[in-house]
Amino acid sequence: MSLVAPVTIQKVSGNSQREAPDLLAVEEPLEIRLGFGSLNDRQQRAVSVTMRTPGHDEELALGFLFTEGIIRLPADVLSCRHCVQDAEKEGNVIRVELQPTVAVDWARLERNTFTSSSCGLCGKTSIEAVRSLTPGPVLSELSLWSSVLHTLPERVRESQPAFAHTGGIHAAALFDAQGKLLLVREDIGRHNALDKLIGAAFWHNWLPLSKAGVFLSGRIGVELVQKSWMAGVPFVAAVGAPSSLAVQMAQEARITLAGFVRNDRFNVYSEPQRIRIAVNA
Amino acid sequence: MSLVAPVTIQKVSGNSQREAPDLLAVEEPLEIRLGFGSLNDRQQRAVSVTMRTPGHDEELALGFLFTEGIIRLPADVLSCRHCVQDAEKEGNVIRVELQPTVAVDWARLERNTFTSSSCGLCGKTSIEAVRSLTPGPVLSELSLWSSVLHTLPERVRESQPAFAHTGGIHAAALFDAQGKLLLVREDIGRHNALDKLIGAAFWHNWLPLSKAGVFLSGRIGVELVQKSWMAGVPFVAAVGAPSSLAVQMAQEARITLAGFVRNDRFNVYSEPQRIRIAVNA
Repeated sequence: MSLVAPVTIQKVSGNSQREAPDLLAVEEPLEIRLGFGSLNDRQQRAVSVTMRTPGHDEELALGFLFTEGIIRLPADVLSCRHCVQDAEKEGNVIRVELQPTVAVDWARLERNTFTSSSCGLCGKTSIEAVRSLTPGPVLSELSLWSSVLHTLPERVRESQPAFAHTGGIHAAALFDAQGKLLLVREDIGRHNALDKLIGAAFWHNWLPLSKAGVFLSGRIGVELVQKSWMAGVPFVAAVGAPSSLAVQMAQEARITLAGFVRNDRFNVYSEPQRIRIAVNA
Repeated sequence: MSLVAPVTIQKVSGNSQREAPDLLAVEEPLEIRLGFGSLNDRQQRAVSVTMRTPGHDEELALGFLFTEGIIRLPADVLSCRHCVQDAEKEGNVIRVELQPTVAVDWARLERNTFTSSSCGLCGKTSIEAVRSLTPGPVLSELSLWSSVLHTLPERVRESQPAFAHTGGIHAAALFDAQGKLLLVREDIGRHNALDKLIGAAFWHNWLPLSKAGVFLSGRIGVELVQKSWMAGVPFVAAVGAPSSLAVQMAQEARITLAGFVRNDRFNVYSEPQRIRIAVNA
């Protein structure tokens, strides 16, 4: 299992060319299988296949299942481990055994996985659907100095080993009001990186994350806001641009959404009162 | 229908803050429905929901269906238009009527849409699956000067109206050996932008695209190589990094894969013989 894979490439610069070693971000499929039902009559079913960067697969699976509303507490999970039966898919199948008491809403799950394994959201009506899974708008006293946001991109970048090598991998980071990085996860998929982060927090019983923010290395689609909302995160900051639907959902969820966080600047799309700006002397 | 949506934001720069108007990349769901069966006994079924930027929806639907192997020729399609029955989803449902002779492999489609509506690929075994849908490795005499590649990023950027306004939207462009842009499509999703491009080429009966290259504004995941392979494209160039599986598939497909195409540089991961480097006098 490795985040990066070695390769030999041709490097072209202007009119010169040379052969050189390089590292690629690893992309492999992960199948998530659920074990469910009574302990006497155990069943299993694959619920998702996602292209991901290997590593923290358990967290990815738990984060996915939590943000899909299938599991709610660590106690819902009997075990979560790689499946070793299927040698051909070595390391690429993870099996999550649910407590017999956990009832899976298969209809809802199918509707979601039908659209995208890592997203689970289709349309404005889904704002309604997410709201029904959360306790409502995020309530949080979290307040940040703008200077904290300015420092995040560089500090996350520094803690991203695979990005430094490949330039092709996303990060999701959890930070506190002082800007301290509590957790960083990397993946070739933006949604997977956030699932890994939320899965880790879920497993540590940190949810809801009402005193922390999430920093994302890319753009902000609506699914990333949806996942953050499920985890109770009051603050989402990202290097890239948000989509129209992401902003709409953040407003609905009362999540502070900051985009284009780079070069000592950022834009705020919702709930700006959580950001304090130092008054120049 | 619009590529961008207006919004009022807080712009923070260092320690100063001001309110300003801004534009967001629009993200909305598109449901693709198939009409199939004999003309006497017509049936319909939704096959995909993807979060996309509205516009060129017909091309997106056709490109998706073509790269999934469901349709092969324009003659397979009776009609492709927005569904007007469902007022609630206005403009966000597109219905593709297939010729009665087109047999849909539902099992394969479910397996694919199960993983991701815009990707349809899970795992290394899928290289095998794509190969079974194509005539084999891409054969092409296409040959490009490196100088052509150096100019692509700026020229694609110039032809991307929505990016200029939002900074949050991807492009896929079709270019010829001289670097002329034949077609450019934009979408908030990288896969959708390429589906739109391939769908347009499909509808114009340009496939296979053995004399053209595809330029992508982001990173190169394996699904983008898979789609290019289906369209018979011998050359894929991108601003971002490729994944390990993308490189593996490009090698298998005999597609030239160039990444990090920017600032007068690029890296070549497969089939470098299609690139000619000018010898300095």
